[in-house]
Amino acid sequence: MSSPKTNSGNFFEDFKFDQELIHPTPRTVTAGDVAVYQALFGPRFAVNSDKEFAKAIGLPDSPIDDLLAFHIVFGKTVPEISLNAVANLGYADGHFGVPVYVGDTITAVSRVIGLKENSDNKTGVVYVRSTGLNQHDEMVVDYVRWVMVRKRTESPPATDPILPNLPAAVPASALMFPHQLRMSGYDLQLSGSPYLWESYEKGEKIDHVDGMTIEEAEHQMATRLYQNTAKVHFNQHEQAQGRFGRRLIYGGHIISLARALSFNGLGNGFRMVAINAGTHANPTFAGNTLYCWSEVVDKIVLPRRDDIGALRLRTVATKDKSCADFPYKGADKKYDPQVVLDFDYTVGRASPHPPLDSLFPQAHRLTPPPPAPCRTMKHTGAQGTAPPAVAIVGQGEMVDLVPVAVDHPLAAPMTIG
Amino acid sequence: MSSPKTNSGNFFEDFKFDQELIHPTPRTVTAGDVAVYQALFGPRFAVNSDKEFAKAIGLPDSPIDDLLAFHIVFGKTVPEISLNAVANLGYADGHFGVPVYVGDTITAVSRVIGLKENSDNKTGVVYVRSTGLNQHDEMVVDYVRWVMVRKRTESPPATDPILPNLPAAVPASALMFPHQLRMSGYDLQLSGSPYLWESYEKGEKIDHVDGMTIEEAEHQMATRLYQNTAKVHFNQHEQAQGRFGRRLIYGGHIISLARALSFNGLGNGFRMVAINAGTHANPTFAGNTLYCWSEVVDKIVLPRRDDIGALRLRTVATKDKSCADFPYKGADKKYDPQVVLDFDYTVGRASPHPPLDSLFPQAHRLTPPPPAPCRTMKHTGAQGTAPPAVAIVGQGEMVDLVPVAVDHPLAAPMTIG
Amino acid sequence: MSSPKTNSGNFFEDFKFDQELIHPTPRTVTAGDVAVYQALFGPRFAVNSDKEFAKAIGLPDSPIDDLLAFHIVFGKTVPEISLNAVANLGYADGHFGVPVYVGDTITAVSRVIGLKENSDNKTGVVYVRSTGLNQHDEMVVDYVRWVMVRKRTESPPATDPILPNLPAAVPASALMFPHQLRMSGYDLQLSGSPYLWESYEKGEKIDHVDGMTIEEAEHQMATRLYQNTAKVHFNQHEQAQGRFGRRLIYGGHIISLARALSFNGLGNGFRMVAINAGTHANPTFAGNTLYCWSEVVDKIVLPRRDDIGALRLRTVATKDKSCADFPYKGADKKYDPQVVLDFDYTVGRASPHPPLDSLFPQAHRLTPPPPAPCRTMKHTGAQGTAPPAVAIVGQGEMVDLVPVAVDHPLAAPMTIG
Repeated sequence: MSSPKTNSGNFFEDFKFDQELIHPTPRTVTAGDVAVYQALFGPRFAVNSDKEFAKAIGLPDSPIDDLLAFHIVFGKTVPEISLNAVANLGYADGHFGVPVYVGDTITAVSRVIGLKENSDNKTGVVYVRSTGLNQHDEMVVDYVRWVMVRKRTESPPATDPILPNLPAAVPASALMFPHQLRMSGYDLQLSGSPYLWESYEKGEKIDHVDGMTIEEAEHQMATRLYQNTAKVHFNQHEQAQGRFGRRLIYGGHIISLARALSFNGLGNGFRMVAINAGTHANPTFAGNTLYCWSEVVDKIVLPRRDDIGALRLRTVATKDKSCADFPYKGADKKYDPQVVLDFDYTVGRASPHPPLDSLFPQAHRLTPPPPAPCRTMKHTGAQGTAPPAVAIVGQGEMVDLVPVAVDHPLAAPMTIG
Repeated sequence: MSSPKTNSGNFFEDFKFDQELIHPTPRTVTAGDVAVYQALFGPRFAVNSDKEFAKAIGLPDSPIDDLLAFHIVFGKTVPEISLNAVANLGYADGHFGVPVYVGDTITAVSRVIGLKENSDNKTGVVYVRSTGLNQHDEMVVDYVRWVMVRKRTESPPATDPILPNLPAAVPASALMFPHQLRMSGYDLQLSGSPYLWESYEKGEKIDHVDGMTIEEAEHQMATRLYQNTAKVHFNQHEQAQGRFGRRLIYGGHIISLARALSFNGLGNGFRMVAINAGTHANPTFAGNTLYCWSEVVDKIVLPRRDDIGALRLRTVATKDKSCADFPYKGADKKYDPQVVLDFDYTVGRASPHPPLDSLFPQAHRLTPPPPAPCRTMKHTGAQGTAPPAVAIVGQGEMVDLVPVAVDHPLAAPMTIG
Repeated sequence: MSSPKTNSGNFFEDFKFDQELIHPTPRTVTAGDVAVYQALFGPRFAVNSDKEFAKAIGLPDSPIDDLLAFHIVFGKTVPEISLNAVANLGYADGHFGVPVYVGDTITAVSRVIGLKENSDNKTGVVYVRSTGLNQHDEMVVDYVRWVMVRKRTESPPATDPILPNLPAAVPASALMFPHQLRMSGYDLQLSGSPYLWESYEKGEKIDHVDGMTIEEAEHQMATRLYQNTAKVHFNQHEQAQGRFGRRLIYGGHIISLARALSFNGLGNGFRMVAINAGTHANPTFAGNTLYCWSEVVDKIVLPRRDDIGALRLRTVATKDKSCADFPYKGADKKYDPQVVLDFDYTVGRASPHPPLDSLFPQAHRLTPPPPAPCRTMKHTGAQGTAPPAVAIVGQGEMVDLVPVAVDHPLAAPMTIG
């Protein structure tokens, strides 16, 4: 008998199209959060590590790691979105907006942008756009994810599916950098890599070499730091009876480890600007050692900036398997069983040219301006407006034009939320 | 052969009635401490998480978790009070005073308020009131605990026992809230629970549902964060030869986990105001999964405030056992062997009425004023003055009028300090 | 096939005499770093714990733990110095300069001060002086270490060895204390120990009594906090095939644990001022319990200060073995197999006399002035200038006059970097 006062999470029937969910427990980010994140993942990007370095490129302070901001937002969405999720199916159309600095307070809201009942009568897929806002109502991160959620009661599909149009990748015109950035102050000796945007070729693959073994205490601490409450990560007593007999590691933990390891080869990719797609291909458990490799999917010239370029990357993480020969998929187009993450994202990299200062007279504005969500919770999602949008959901195969598009949502039955 | 320069702790003979002990190593609390605590326990109370939320209810900043303040004070007392303790027997008459903010420095002092030799000739019980003070000599936490301590030399009882009068529960008149609190700014959407003081009934039980597995690294990190030096938590080489063969987890770790889990059902109980009693019913070890449930023992109307009410709660934590059917004691009145904590405390909860501002013209004062300890260490304990005081020590059974009174001190032979 | 964009580390052939290496990823130290360090090691020195205590002795704030500063600098040097190290052989001539405060940014540079090919044709020994600088280009820590590094290609020794002159211990004239220190404000009750410099005798041994068991998550978190990338600490998948089958714990982790445990007996040794020598005698693994003991090697009267004295200490740490009888070396002069650390360092301790204020009119200056490295990376090492310098390298036995001198570099084949 459960108390009505405890949160038993939303079931598929509880979600309505265009519904807005305001997520509780806003979070003021502190230097402590940054240090715990540092201790758990070991990132070495100088912009986030050294406030003098950050100031030298025009920022007021070191921003926190973009993924720390992402995880804080993601964690807030769990109680309303994915407490009853069977599987976290994918991410798309993820934008990073205003950098988050120590002292900022992050609030999260989500909007239901798609609903689809499954033919098993027991589950459905819910698509949400989740947005993190700082205390000035500026967007800090904004992304779509879709999860397979249990129905409260078994029933055959009774409604037509509503599927969002989602871009295969965030277009160059929607990539945002802080306006203040002045890359002329970027020190290549202190950044730890001499390789700039110009140094990379489309199709180039990089084995990031290093491996990192994950401990139970580590992923639990990370996930609690984000106030993510998904039971599967924390409760061994219950998981011992479950499908794997083990606590599952939060998929975002793998993303952060892969990002930190990717420094070795992508050291100047200092700012994550977009998440195009993401799949947790296989589960990860404590004791697994993570490796990863990356492929340069695209080189993006940024409109109105010639001192920064963007790289679209696919980073693939494996467990207990070296990435020296870039393990990915087999002849059957299925993921190698040791592949745990297929992550398609875009990073900004320093470029040697001076910035076009005259184009950016407004202080504290992004380029281009973000969608304008606000703390009054009337935020507007970007779906429907972001060209070129490609409907990828429901297709059994990847979209040809987009080599790293999101997989079919049912192809990755992994709960990570 | 031990050096005279190392602390070998106090034995029973070393404690004198009314003796004051000043505990070394004061501690300036930082945002880092808050983040490590967040990572270890995952609390979600908005007041502690979001400085904007805290400001909206009149506070200057987010106070740190009340239990983090408690543990820092408790940790300081260990070298002088419980290094030679056989068992930490109980807590009573615990008050939380001025909130602790990042930047505050906490010092701890203890006064011996009771002494009783045991008939085994080897041990005695020492009662101390420990007080944590901030840098302005304001009380931040103040509580009584009693521990069974080894005698230096075996000898039959030679002195009459001195037993403190302890209240079965902290009375409403002694519950303190920061004067600045203005509950009209409390946002129920962001706090994560719609349930206010009025929503709860005396006798209501709530299963907090979620479970959390504890790792060795986690409880060691927490306990070192508090500078608690009790050997039993840290030394596996020695504990392997001991009673359990394992490191014992600090009892306060269980209290913090239970408090964090209790958010799911008690989300607006944002401020711990009193510890009435506490028993560590059974030991906890790494690998155990903690669950908990709470009972509303009493609903307390606060004098001079109609925008906050208090709930007296009993929170019971179990290991490796769901709390769906509220496990507690058997027919023999002994604790279920899976019950590890029986904690009786009082929390303040938002109430929908506006505050009576006119009654509180003094800035930065508590309601009511705290006992006035000072850094000159002439602090005065509250015992003897707090009505209604009930002598509960030495009784083999619980006091009838007080359903959650402290157990007989010898009934809970668990070293936790 | 490794990408040229990943750091494969320097091999012996890559190091040139007098070469300067600027280490990437400077690091702004935060209160979060201090808290994570606190949680991992549990230090209790009041100066680092209580900002009011620090102010009472003339400092502007609590400095961070001297070893945290050391580890941050050490961590930065790993990618260029010891990524291909077979063994971290020793430390010498380590100086602590300006204290590091929260908000300071640390950069590290190293200079090659010695090179020696080994007769195995596969390795050589590289001697570097590494220096950490704050954002004002003031030296915060500066030390020599030597590592055995793989050659890129096997070849017989072809060059004459160049060996640095290294002092057996940092001389009194080179010990630096913050000029602002006023020990008259040092509170012996709050510091936790009544024993001042005068209380210790040369040759006195102290068993620090307490033991601490190390978990995998703990040493990984610490080592990532320092951005130390040495593979052996993190990659169980690879280490399972290695010499020990286990992840090796960073040697600096042992130093920090020993230092924290040494509080129990050396509670007023609040400032580490020099590292004279250090040997990691045996490897340490997760699950080991650390104990330690110290010997007072020398009592040093400081020139121009009569309120502080220095103690030269040897602290020996053991694994899974009590230090009650001071385990060290056998009749064969080899380390007891349970001894893991032999660390020779100097700490400053309070002394009861008033400071000679008039001698130190300059604000913010050290006593004596540090070597003057600068962020333009034209820093000058101290080797060659620090009298009395004793060549200890290449000798098969310890120098007689200096009981705790550095061992022969090949005698301690332990990779810790």
